[in-house]
Amino acid sequence: MKWKLDPVTRPPKPDEFALIARFLAPLAQGETGAFGLLDDGAIVDIGQGQRLVATADALIEGVHFLSSDPPELVGRKLLRVNLSDLAAMGATPFAYLLTMALREQGAPDWVEAFARGLAADQSEFGVTLIGGDTTATHGPISLSVTALGRVSPEGGLLRSGARAGDRIFVSGTIGDSAMGLKSLTDNLAGLGEKDRTYLERRYRLPEPRISLGRQLLGLATAAIDVSDGLVGDLEHICSASGVGATVELTCVPMSPAVQAAVEGDPKLAEIAIAGGDDYELLFTAPVDKRTAIEAAVRDSGVPVTEIGTVETGQVVVILGQNGNPLALKHHGYRHF
Amino acid sequence: MKWKLDPVTRPPKPDEFALIARFLAPLAQGETGAFGLLDDGAIVDIGQGQRLVATADALIEGVHFLSSDPPELVGRKLLRVNLSDLAAMGATPFAYLLTMALREQGAPDWVEAFARGLAADQSEFGVTLIGGDTTATHGPISLSVTALGRVSPEGGLLRSGARAGDRIFVSGTIGDSAMGLKSLTDNLAGLGEKDRTYLERRYRLPEPRISLGRQLLGLATAAIDVSDGLVGDLEHICSASGVGATVELTCVPMSPAVQAAVEGDPKLAEIAIAGGDDYELLFTAPVDKRTAIEAAVRDSGVPVTEIGTVETGQVVVILGQNGNPLALKHHGYRHF
Repeated sequence: MKWKLDPVTRPPKPDEFALIARFLAPLAQGETGAFGLLDDGAIVDIGQGQRLVATADALIEGVHFLSSDPPELVGRKLLRVNLSDLAAMGATPFAYLLTMALREQGAPDWVEAFARGLAADQSEFGVTLIGGDTTATHGPISLSVTALGRVSPEGGLLRSGARAGDRIFVSGTIGDSAMGLKSLTDNLAGLGEKDRTYLERRYRLPEPRISLGRQLLGLATAAIDVSDGLVGDLEHICSASGVGATVELTCVPMSPAVQAAVEGDPKLAEIAIAGGDDYELLFTAPVDKRTAIEAAVRDSGVPVTEIGTVETGQVVVILGQNGNPLALKHHGYRHF
Repeated sequence: MKWKLDPVTRPPKPDEFALIARFLAPLAQGETGAFGLLDDGAIVDIGQGQRLVATADALIEGVHFLSSDPPELVGRKLLRVNLSDLAAMGATPFAYLLTMALREQGAPDWVEAFARGLAADQSEFGVTLIGGDTTATHGPISLSVTALGRVSPEGGLLRSGARAGDRIFVSGTIGDSAMGLKSLTDNLAGLGEKDRTYLERRYRLPEPRISLGRQLLGLATAAIDVSDGLVGDLEHICSASGVGATVELTCVPMSPAVQAAVEGDPKLAEIAIAGGDDYELLFTAPVDKRTAIEAAVRDSGVPVTEIGTVETGQVVVILGQNGNPLALKHHGYRHF
């Protein structure tokens, strides 16, 4: 789910955030578990202590994937971006629904390969297709998945619980996906073939951190999956929690491939931390939970790095290599 | 939900039914409550005796609605076609998720009116928006809703329970929507303004029969909402149940407006029973349940008409005015 609000450090604009806040959030007032459409998903009490987590994300040809992208990987990415939202809530996914708008007589070859990708990830993540709709379109292929998960009666991870003094953590490495897209659509001078392949794979096949998300229940005070970029999504946490944050750029974990790209062109560092589509978990936790988090990390098998501190106030500051705040032009991806 | 299988009276074709059967149904094997993607929705056991019903339907600009259609009515139709699927399962809806692909800077005027339509129907049907996604597209507006409902532990209405000897019933009137679309896009000679307005309204604003669906639990042996046309959807019931059916055309309930259109051009009768988008409930029940059904109908306030009989065999026969079987060219709407 990508419902977002106007980030704390920018004025409201007539963009998707504003559209959602103005016209859609009022439709969600009747269900407190919808969190005003400001979180990664909804948590709905369905009786008898059972809590359902639901999230939906769409992928549009020409916007989220390229016509030339292998359909298997489109299918897997579609499922994974939704599973990543469930991971950010600490939920255990179990099922999904799929709607597809297709052209060209239904494009059976494309659908066959697409479904093969879904099948591979169903096995990997323990989910099953339970329904949906297939229609025709005169335009680009349009795909939407609603993913369903369960969470314990005590609740899941929200964006809104960060408190001043909490430490900020992120899983995996940041910037791979944005740099992979740049490698596919642009020229990344001096980058070797192996680095390119790694980055493009990370762009096309995000890794939902479901196991880590579950381990963070009761430890993290706030969590989000990084889809709009590290800076933009940290702003979402800060806005939902009513806090600010300071992050040290040198602490942000970057893969050898991204490091090589940034060494070739230092301006690429901004793309790495603002570019988005990382699908890593960004979360906050009190200092005294650090040891427990280290244990959780060991259990989940995903590296986690401490990158900064939650502050009072409303401002998100990124400190550069010289210790001075960066002036970022781009905070994250927006559609309008 | 519009997952369908190859209808019993036609050979398999490389169309949406075949796409689903070949590539998507195998993805649903892990969940018996997905019914092989052959029913109106899925019924998933979520523990503690709670059963969740989920369905998803998409609407594409230029395919399911016209660019000139009032956005309020597009919003209401999008929600209602999904609620109609829940009605056909006897479920009580409670929430929905929405994904939208928009162009033109997000088209705030369009979204505002669209959301106004959703708000009106949220009140009418007791559902709340709990999540979704808003993205950009270079093509037609693409909308998808996943609707969630509850059903009692005893289960909901399926397509697969019809038995030879059962009587066949349908709610409301058939053909209004198909004739309304014809009135909007074509010329219906001799039809008065009042009839036109009625038919176009029925095309744009279907009436999900939620109350009736709930009342039919324990009475109906099979049920479906009529989206592909009376004949096509009866074929879906027959195929899922392993039976045939005979329907008398003169018994099929038609509104005065459709009757007037058919009197002007008798060939329009076929469009009425095959055209689709009626969103009435088509169901089967044993003869001895007739009295109970009449009582249920009184409670729900929706008229129900007996139109035929479930037969052994695999053939769906429509008897015309002279008692001879009709040779239908069109059985229902298909996308590919």
